[in-house]
Amino acid sequence: MASDLQSKLEALSINPTVLSHGPCKNLAEWHAQLDSVIPQPDFEYKLVKTMVFKPKAPKSETAPLIVLVALEDSQTPSSTVCKAVGVKEARLASEDVVSGVLSVSTADVSPFSITKENASSVKVVLDKALLDYPGKLGVHPNDSAKTFFLAQKDIQRYLLGAETEIDEVDFTSEVYQTSGPSTVGKSEAKKAVAPPPQNEKIEGAALIGITVKKELDFPGWYQQVLTKGDMLDYYDVSGCYILKPWSYTIWEQIQKWFDAKIKGIGVENCYFPMFVSSKVLEREKDHIEGFAPEVAWVTKAGSTDLEEPIAIRPTSETVMYPYYAKWIRSHRDLPLRLNQWNSVVRWEFKHPQPFLRTREFLWQEGHTAHLTFKDANEEVLQILDFYAGVYEDLLAVPVIKGKKTDKERFAGGLFTTTCEGYIPTTGRGIQGATSHCLGQNFSKMFGITVEDPSSKEGEEKEKLFVWQNSWGLSTRVIGVMVMIHGDQKGLVLPPRVAGHQVVIVPCGITTKTSESNRDLLYDDIKQIAARLTEAGIRVKADLRDSYSPGYKFNDWELKGVPLRLEYGPQDAKKRQVLGARRDTGAKAAIPLDNLTDSVHELLETIQGDLYKKAKESFDANIEIIKKWEEFVPALNQKKVILMPFCLEESCEDDIKERSKRTDTSEAEDAKAPSMGAKSLCRPFNQPSGLVLGETKCLACGKDAKEYCLFGRSY
Amino acid sequence: MASDLQSKLEALSINPTVLSHGPCKNLAEWHAQLDSVIPQPDFEYKLVKTMVFKPKAPKSETAPLIVLVALEDSQTPSSTVCKAVGVKEARLASEDVVSGVLSVSTADVSPFSITKENASSVKVVLDKALLDYPGKLGVHPNDSAKTFFLAQKDIQRYLLGAETEIDEVDFTSEVYQTSGPSTVGKSEAKKAVAPPPQNEKIEGAALIGITVKKELDFPGWYQQVLTKGDMLDYYDVSGCYILKPWSYTIWEQIQKWFDAKIKGIGVENCYFPMFVSSKVLEREKDHIEGFAPEVAWVTKAGSTDLEEPIAIRPTSETVMYPYYAKWIRSHRDLPLRLNQWNSVVRWEFKHPQPFLRTREFLWQEGHTAHLTFKDANEEVLQILDFYAGVYEDLLAVPVIKGKKTDKERFAGGLFTTTCEGYIPTTGRGIQGATSHCLGQNFSKMFGITVEDPSSKEGEEKEKLFVWQNSWGLSTRVIGVMVMIHGDQKGLVLPPRVAGHQVVIVPCGITTKTSESNRDLLYDDIKQIAARLTEAGIRVKADLRDSYSPGYKFNDWELKGVPLRLEYGPQDAKKRQVLGARRDTGAKAAIPLDNLTDSVHELLETIQGDLYKKAKESFDANIEIIKKWEEFVPALNQKKVILMPFCLEESCEDDIKERSKRTDTSEAEDAKAPSMGAKSLCRPFNQPSGLVLGETKCLACGKDAKEYCLFGRSY
Repeated sequence: MASDLQSKLEALSINPTVLSHGPCKNLAEWHAQLDSVIPQPDFEYKLVKTMVFKPKAPKSETAPLIVLVALEDSQTPSSTVCKAVGVKEARLASEDVVSGVLSVSTADVSPFSITKENASSVKVVLDKALLDYPGKLGVHPNDSAKTFFLAQKDIQRYLLGAETEIDEVDFTSEVYQTSGPSTVGKSEAKKAVAPPPQNEKIEGAALIGITVKKELDFPGWYQQVLTKGDMLDYYDVSGCYILKPWSYTIWEQIQKWFDAKIKGIGVENCYFPMFVSSKVLEREKDHIEGFAPEVAWVTKAGSTDLEEPIAIRPTSETVMYPYYAKWIRSHRDLPLRLNQWNSVVRWEFKHPQPFLRTREFLWQEGHTAHLTFKDANEEVLQILDFYAGVYEDLLAVPVIKGKKTDKERFAGGLFTTTCEGYIPTTGRGIQGATSHCLGQNFSKMFGITVEDPSSKEGEEKEKLFVWQNSWGLSTRVIGVMVMIHGDQKGLVLPPRVAGHQVVIVPCGITTKTSESNRDLLYDDIKQIAARLTEAGIRVKADLRDSYSPGYKFNDWELKGVPLRLEYGPQDAKKRQVLGARRDTGAKAAIPLDNLTDSVHELLETIQGDLYKKAKESFDANIEIIKKWEEFVPALNQKKVILMPFCLEESCEDDIKERSKRTDTSEAEDAKAPSMGAKSLCRPFNQPSGLVLGETKCLACGKDAKEYCLFGRSY
Repeated sequence: MASDLQSKLEALSINPTVLSHGPCKNLAEWHAQLDSVIPQPDFEYKLVKTMVFKPKAPKSETAPLIVLVALEDSQTPSSTVCKAVGVKEARLASEDVVSGVLSVSTADVSPFSITKENASSVKVVLDKALLDYPGKLGVHPNDSAKTFFLAQKDIQRYLLGAETEIDEVDFTSEVYQTSGPSTVGKSEAKKAVAPPPQNEKIEGAALIGITVKKELDFPGWYQQVLTKGDMLDYYDVSGCYILKPWSYTIWEQIQKWFDAKIKGIGVENCYFPMFVSSKVLEREKDHIEGFAPEVAWVTKAGSTDLEEPIAIRPTSETVMYPYYAKWIRSHRDLPLRLNQWNSVVRWEFKHPQPFLRTREFLWQEGHTAHLTFKDANEEVLQILDFYAGVYEDLLAVPVIKGKKTDKERFAGGLFTTTCEGYIPTTGRGIQGATSHCLGQNFSKMFGITVEDPSSKEGEEKEKLFVWQNSWGLSTRVIGVMVMIHGDQKGLVLPPRVAGHQVVIVPCGITTKTSESNRDLLYDDIKQIAARLTEAGIRVKADLRDSYSPGYKFNDWELKGVPLRLEYGPQDAKKRQVLGARRDTGAKAAIPLDNLTDSVHELLETIQGDLYKKAKESFDANIEIIKKWEEFVPALNQKKVILMPFCLEESCEDDIKERSKRTDTSEAEDAKAPSMGAKSLCRPFNQPSGLVLGETKCLACGKDAKEYCLFGRSY
């Protein structure tokens, strides 16, 4: 396709500047990708947004698609687009429709997707502002991982070359003109009036602030909250991200807490190499099948080709277990409980997302071996409780603990336990962390055995295969926390993990304030900070001279610092600080006298309230349904569903199929629409009322075994 | 060569079993490599050792080389070998000689190295025990990274095929027989008596103990101390090693200490991806030239070839600095001080060594940006002091701080400061950790600039390139500590980093001891342990029933636990424990009453004494020389050398050449012999007596600028 396009452009003597970067699925990500690869920071350009609409029409009649080609920042309400081409109503075309007609995916679509071949099945709506734009325009060459920079006339020339119908529209004018080849739309358009645009931008949002609404453009919001909140930056290798100190310190808090917990039960840390030979990697078949497609291979060192390619660990079962076989010689060597804090690589080709799906990610992986199933099983649940603790006690994120169904179980394991979270804005469930019992499957593959200690003296000692667990928690937890607590002003961090729990901002300093008075104020603030630090509170005194209090407020709100303390001359007189909660915005004066206690309390209150709020919204969105007909509607209301289930894999596949949404109007989440529901877990805490042998699976009518939690998910 | 050999063997219808593994340069490593790749743990075999000797003979006459082919565990004193072939004296042949005649390196040499072509220039001494061995024999096919398993008759058949002269020798009998083709050696041999073999093995060393002498086979000793001391295991990807909890916990101690130090001066932790695009990696030319030959490349994910290969970071300058350019917008963003604890990959083809040279290693890398040289320079030295602190305060290892010469400086940097250590047993210097000032070189490459804050209002603001540092400390520190403090009983760990500082072993329990008395004793011990833990001491109560006190003593001595406390019925009566120091072996009773204070003191004493001892041996081996003629002799006495030096690179190259040792008799260190001396550093603490313009460089006679430290080095 690409080279094909190249030759076409050359034929038209169009010579764009070409840049390669990571794939991107919306304007925000596109900009982020370009930022990290454009050499000159001051390079001036605008991006071209290309959107495909499907007119609402009776199945019989297949109306041509509408392709909108506009400047990134033009307001282009779909209603106006419809008017221009004279259709009543149109919706964003589904992935299938787009690739069906234009043979590219929605993310890759561009003016170049229109060719002589498909010209007859599309109409183009061309933004006049684009035709008037004098600078460079960025366009995807049918590949979201590349950008062509060219002039508007080049785009125009290409489209004319494709001999498609073009409607030129001035979205800025109330009554807009259309020009170009005569169209049905034209005449109507003349009289048409553009309705107030459905606006995803926040009017007058300061540029440093979040400029899109969490509810209307969640991916855009998430991306802005992370980058403007200083958590993360995009990186020029797709699927990889930079963890900046503000997010890494949260990871450090989690490490400190969890590391103490596991050491408390006798787990030891170690480090195994990141490389694994193919021979070893592929020892356990089911297991590797689960990972093979995502394994990154090193084949060269310097300019030398390696004799055989070496894999980068996607997880360390097969890396470690040959040595478990070597080290475990007797039941006295059990339990063997090792953990490592490392990074693993899973080269997924699905769309990457910061923290949630990244090609390299930080995590801990625990790998333990036990003499009996009982010991292994106890540990699996113990660890799962620690994971729930990370979410609920540290991150103020409620989770539901349970078992995965066989379909969703860890490849090669016996059973998988999980903490499942929920993102209200998208109504999608998210797997929080998993603790696997591997049973004896791996110990049989790798020959990890001990002699049965219970066998009597003299008699033939029986070989026992050890029971194994593996369990992992990754930086994904940070993404979940951000999605749940973050708001329109940016991040909202729970006190227990925030890098700074408190920030102190000097206020009421004016040009009239004498230097000495200012210094006095600053000294007070330094003392206050010292007292809080003394009391074990992570505090920051923001004494930057060059910024106004207002700027500082925004800045720390973006970063989600739980508590802001304002201190000015008036407060000094009253021996108080003014406290402002990040989560509620509530303000109250706090006397300096028992400041540290008050702050401690307040931080704990904030921590508790964050959890309560999230818990309420989770609970409110779990629907226990009584018949299958309620399933899809509940999903479309962004709920997760508890229903009696037969636990059969075929039925689970079937549920996924039947719950795929065909309605594609929702813009809020490009991936959700067509997505079917997955089983999230079989909650340990089961609703009452399921009678074995009586209650039926709502999906297939066979006997139900358990209530199972279903939902669209990440 | 290999395939050539294959066909030869097929011609002789010899069909060995072939195993591939990492390269290895002695029997210990060979076994380690095989252990990690041999499928069945119970596979029975012996290795064939092949040693090449050069008869001492006047230059004129070139006597044939002697190739000894023997069972790995046969005692084969060189004198006996000489007798067998009738030469007075012979020495291990140098690398050059071996490759010259057999066209393979010493590490790769095997019976298969002998061919019809070179048969006339060698004599083979064949171990009778080998010919009698019924099982599988392991032989390198002229490649130490492979092992062929075959029967003794195959080896015999091969050698006969090569038509070389073979002397069969029974090393077990005092007066041995030789057979095979008549030789000069034969007749003499008959009457010859084997002298007591020069024995590197320790008579009657328990198998769990260290079986080779530190002074006689340092590499073998190092390998045993690490594996038997439970620090590390060999891994089936060459150059990679497993850090077991016992060594990893030392790393954790170091991390805790150093992390607090750098956070104290305002450094923040973060995480950058391990992957870097070739485009970015190669941005800074000098820099990448230094690393290019060692860079590992990912070219495949799953079964998909990547569009362009992606590198794994060998270090993160080029990974991070494009983002420094993006993040640093004003002098207010300075200093920017980031650190990451991660692993990097340098695919060296030199011989790997645990901790010292590994293809993946753990480290921290700090990368900072400053407004002025002054700020950068202060930090470089501050960090170097922290590094010296890790060595001297934590690891009890003395180091010399100084600057690297231009020849040894970090690629692309302005200057490099370093801590240099010294390994007495080999007499080699070792680079401990380096703190680099990068100057403005990288900021110019990556365009990291700020506006000059000093420029006046209104006037044209000047762009300033920031000043940068980078500094790193790796797990190498652990290897240095082991080499310096370890002794014939195994590891000796400094208290401040030891996983267990104290181990308590119950003693005096006999078959007569009643269960209740034993329980009482155990309860006491648990209480003692609790008290010590309470007092912040890392203590282990070894209550394993199935092991004798003697076994436990050996076990914890191998592991280097600083202090052992013995507690038995007698001690209980006397309200005391018996303390045994690992470093000196000294024993003394410690009253239970102020136990914790006494133990605290004792541990500090041990820490101090370890340092003192190491410092004395370092100082005793630094020689300030007065004329060049003393240089090589001092090196050969395992010293490092301080001498007035011109600092010129050409002169440094020259010194390396002139100090290469030709005498190859020393077995203690396979790499040292032919190695020339490098400049280790220009010590900050200079000896007095150098007069600029007067004192001359001892190597070239030009004016000396400074005293410089030289030595053979790792």
